[in-house]
Amino acid sequence: MLKENERIDYLMQHDLGIIQSPQVFSFSLDAVLLGDFAKIRNRKDLKIIDLCSGNGAVALMLSQKTESHIYGVEIQAELADMAQRSIEMNQLSDQITMIHKDLKEIGTEHYDSVDVITCNPPYFPLEEQGQVNPNEYLAIARHELYVNLDELLFKISKLLKINGKTYIVHRPDRFLELMDVMRAHRVMPKRVRFIHANEKTPANMVLIEGIKNGKEAGFQMLPPLFVHEEDGSYRPEVRKVLYGEQRNEK
Amino acid sequence: MLKENERIDYLMQHDLGIIQSPQVFSFSLDAVLLGDFAKIRNRKDLKIIDLCSGNGAVALMLSQKTESHIYGVEIQAELADMAQRSIEMNQLSDQITMIHKDLKEIGTEHYDSVDVITCNPPYFPLEEQGQVNPNEYLAIARHELYVNLDELLFKISKLLKINGKTYIVHRPDRFLELMDVMRAHRVMPKRVRFIHANEKTPANMVLIEGIKNGKEAGFQMLPPLFVHEEDGSYRPEVRKVLYGEQRNEK
Repeated sequence: MLKENERIDYLMQHDLGIIQSPQVFSFSLDAVLLGDFAKIRNRKDLKIIDLCSGNGAVALMLSQKTESHIYGVEIQAELADMAQRSIEMNQLSDQITMIHKDLKEIGTEHYDSVDVITCNPPYFPLEEQGQVNPNEYLAIARHELYVNLDELLFKISKLLKINGKTYIVHRPDRFLELMDVMRAHRVMPKRVRFIHANEKTPANMVLIEGIKNGKEAGFQMLPPLFVHEEDGSYRPEVRKVLYGEQRNEK
Repeated sequence: MLKENERIDYLMQHDLGIIQSPQVFSFSLDAVLLGDFAKIRNRKDLKIIDLCSGNGAVALMLSQKTESHIYGVEIQAELADMAQRSIEMNQLSDQITMIHKDLKEIGTEHYDSVDVITCNPPYFPLEEQGQVNPNEYLAIARHELYVNLDELLFKISKLLKINGKTYIVHRPDRFLELMDVMRAHRVMPKRVRFIHANEKTPANMVLIEGIKNGKEAGFQMLPPLFVHEEDGSYRPEVRKVLYGEQRNEK
């Protein structure tokens, strides 16, 4: 089941194993916090899509929140394959369908039909760093080589039902741009949560909930999440997301 | 020195007394946090303006950070008079000049000349609450009867030098609108700090630093401020702003 350089990481909260590869793609805390942030009703009839799905970490997490079907869309064949093997390893093939596809090519037959879309997109605009990652897998996952924010929100807006929700994780230095692009595509930012390493540092991540054709009013800035204790260990809320309910430690 | 229903509140950090009146105007934590948030170099030659100055609390606080001259601008005669009496009471007449004026009427002779502008503007748009406060003093201070965000940022942008800074406090539900209006007037939001009652509640206040003709890049979401302990008392950071260095208590 594992290819060269691959390993299995575990999300113990959900008892999920996820195939990772430092050479191809590894999900990180961003994906885990996004999967945790997304609100999904436990129904069977929702249509859920995870865009920029990578090795499927977010799609796998969502499967533990709902009985509805989840579609993961990933442009890179090797990553979609890693995700597919993780889905099989976790015996979730009935609930999660991995699609190897450029999200821009998702057809109009899916428009106005999706209840929830999650996305952990590439963070870096092409102009920002002349040099992209020399590893092509990582470059595509991290840099806007194949999709930028405007193209992404265009597609999210097309896919969502009216009042459908999207959950996006991004970097704080692109927060205002993201707010602009979301609203330009009538995906109204509703709840925002910033992630800080600790109480003393500016945010290094931001989680956003948007609603298609939502009203302007009602924007909420949620309490932030602080990730690390002073000794560098994870705080209880992060431990809970990663490892499940807090256990007493000696 | 005090008129009917007035009292003197003290900002012990700065050893300032400020005349307050529940019937006319009382500064609150918003103003104190704004005065604390504003960064002012301790120079003698800066031009500093506090708009929507109310009873002068922010202008008075700023005078403790710099030797430069500070102008307070307040549209309501009664409030400007309260501020003037507080300035005299604190023996700061040489450093603070209170101007009773509609900020929209500040003349072009002051354009492109100001280093720092602070502002604690009216929070409520006129359409939001059909009923404004029946007390006219409070209504003008809280509702956008005489100045709205667009008019305010137009004037701030005109007054500031290139790279001059503005510090504004507002409500989170108008955060995105404020980001839009600031950028429309080329006052780039640079640092943002949300204020929460505690770790469990959405923000109820936001502090913003903007720079005239600043670049798009470099937006920072600062760590938030939590105001209250579980028992309702102020947290140490707030106590420090209000009362000065922490003292041991029995």
